[in-house]
Order: sequence, then structure tokens, then C-alpha cells
Amino acid sequence: MVLDAELGEATTSERCAFCAIARGEAPAEIVLDDVAGVAFLDRRPLFPGHVLVVPRRHVETLPHLAPEEIGPFFALVQRLTRGVPEATGADGTFVAINNVVSQSVPHVHVHIVPRRQGDGLFSRNLAWTRHPYRDETEMRAVAAAIRDALAPDGIG
Amino acid sequence: MVLDAELGEATTSERCAFCAIARGEAPAEIVLDDVAGVAFLDRRPLFPGHVLVVPRRHVETLPHLAPEEIGPFFALVQRLTRGVPEATGADGTFVAINNVVSQSVPHVHVHIVPRRQGDGLFSRNLAWTRHPYRDETEMRAVAAAIRDALAPDGIG
Repeated sequence: MVLDAELGEATTSERCAFCAIARGEAPAEIVLDDVAGVAFLDRRPLFPGHVLVVPRRHVETLPHLAPEEIGPFFALVQRLTRGVPEATGADGTFVAINNVVSQSVPHVHVHIVPRRQGDGLFSRNLAWTRHPYRDETEMRAVAAAIRDALAPDGIG
Repeated sequence: MVLDAELGEATTSERCAFCAIARGEAPAEIVLDDVAGVAFLDRRPLFPGHVLVVPRRHVETLPHLAPEEIGPFFALVQRLTRGVPEATGADGTFVAINNVVSQSVPHVHVHIVPRRQGDGLFSRNLAWTRHPYRDETEMRAVAAAIRDALAPDGIG
């Protein structure tokens, strides 16, 4: 039974889109690469600079995170709530986690979305409108700016 | 200057609605009372069982949380992502933090909202519709159920 469970977890991890990014096997604009997790640009951003941060280990939802993982993982989340606004000139951030319902990939991921006053994210007409990057060049430039803001001499 | 800063913080804390709840000076349906923070029902819930958790100390936004506060505080958030669905029969949770923009009270607070498949939270027509409690009795019953789920012998 233990073998089945382990096999199940290994198989899930092999098929997981976010595990593949964490292992460097799938393309992504990575902005932070740490022992506790990896952060990369959401390819369908609510606003440019919208980042996802995931634990390196395949953990399905926040309730599944081990006690010793919580501090280091949310320290990364905090760094991003500093670095993302610094890099994008935003006023603040929206930080969100969907557990089970509305969770597109069953590997816990925290959204960090740059916010500006009046951007309408929560207005009924604009709710959850995606604002894609114009092109790969713009996407790469935003990722580079976030990496710079998170660098040891940056604010993050 | 230090005195001014300290005075400023004290004054802010005295006027802060969430500090008043944490000190037991303002009414709230508290579901979790811990050295790292206090959790209580949002009085205008997205769905019944919608909880806010705040650090006990007056901290304005997530970027302001001290490194040593992150682990214990997010351990409370994790407990609530177990206890709230257990108490409400929900399928999952939506966890969210607004930093600066859309932040109604300048004391960092994490929303834990119970989610059900098909509840429409993110649909354009239903986005951010509040579902108030029918009355105080229903509100108290939901709070009691969450407290039970979070008790040492509960799931949280």
C-alpha cells in the first residue's frame, strides 16, 4: 500500500506542469529560484508581472504543506510582494491561493498580482480579465525587471 | 524621531479596528485565538464561514511582517484552510490578501473563504457578491462549528 502511494505521488509529479518547470524541463520565465520554491510569470496574467510561486516539492494544496515548509515558502511569497511592485511600479499586490476549487493545476501555487489604484480588478465588468503580454519581448523584460528587484541588492 | 515613529504606531494601533478585535475590545465572532494571530468571521462574508486572520501585532501589509512572524502566522492560515471546509462542508478554499490596493483596513488580514464546486465566486455575474448571514444565530452557529473543527481533537 505504501508502495502504491509512493508510486502514485511519483507519477503525479512526473505529469505535473509545475514540477516540470521546477525541474527546468518546461519553459517558463523564472524570476526566483530557491530551495523552498520557484517563482515564474503566469503566461495569462491578470496584469503584467503576475507571478506564480510554487513549492519545489509536489504538494497538492496549502493544507498538504509540511509544517517545516510553511515559513520558508511564505518568506518567498513575502519577497515577491516587495519585488513585484518595485519592478512594475505598482501600488500594491493581490495575493491569492485557490485550494481545490478553481485550482487549475493540483500543485499549490500562490498568485502575486501587481495592483494599481483604479485598475478595476474587482469591478464586475473587469473581474478576472486577463491582460496578456504584447509579445515575448515584453514578457522577458518584465521578468528581468522582477529578477533585478529580487536580487540581493534589490528591495525584495 | 524614534519617539514620533513609536507614537505614530501606537496611535494607529489604538484606532485600528482589527487591533481592537485582537485586544478583545471590539465584538467579533472569534474562531481562533493564538499568540501569532486572531481569526474571526468576516461580517460581510462572500460565503458563510468566510474568516479573516490577522497578526496580533499591528502590521500594515504582508511586506511589513517580520521574518520570524511569517512561519507562525501562515501556520494559522493553513489550520484555517483545514478547519473552515471541515466546519462548513466546503470542497476547498479561496485564500487572499490585498496589500495596499483594495485593502479596507490597514492591518494585514488573510481572507479564508469556503468554496464549493459551481459556487460562481469568480463568474462575472456573481463576482464578489456578499452572502450575509440570515441572522446572529446563524453566524454564531457557523463560528461554533469552525471553533470545533479547529479544536485540538478536530481536523484543524
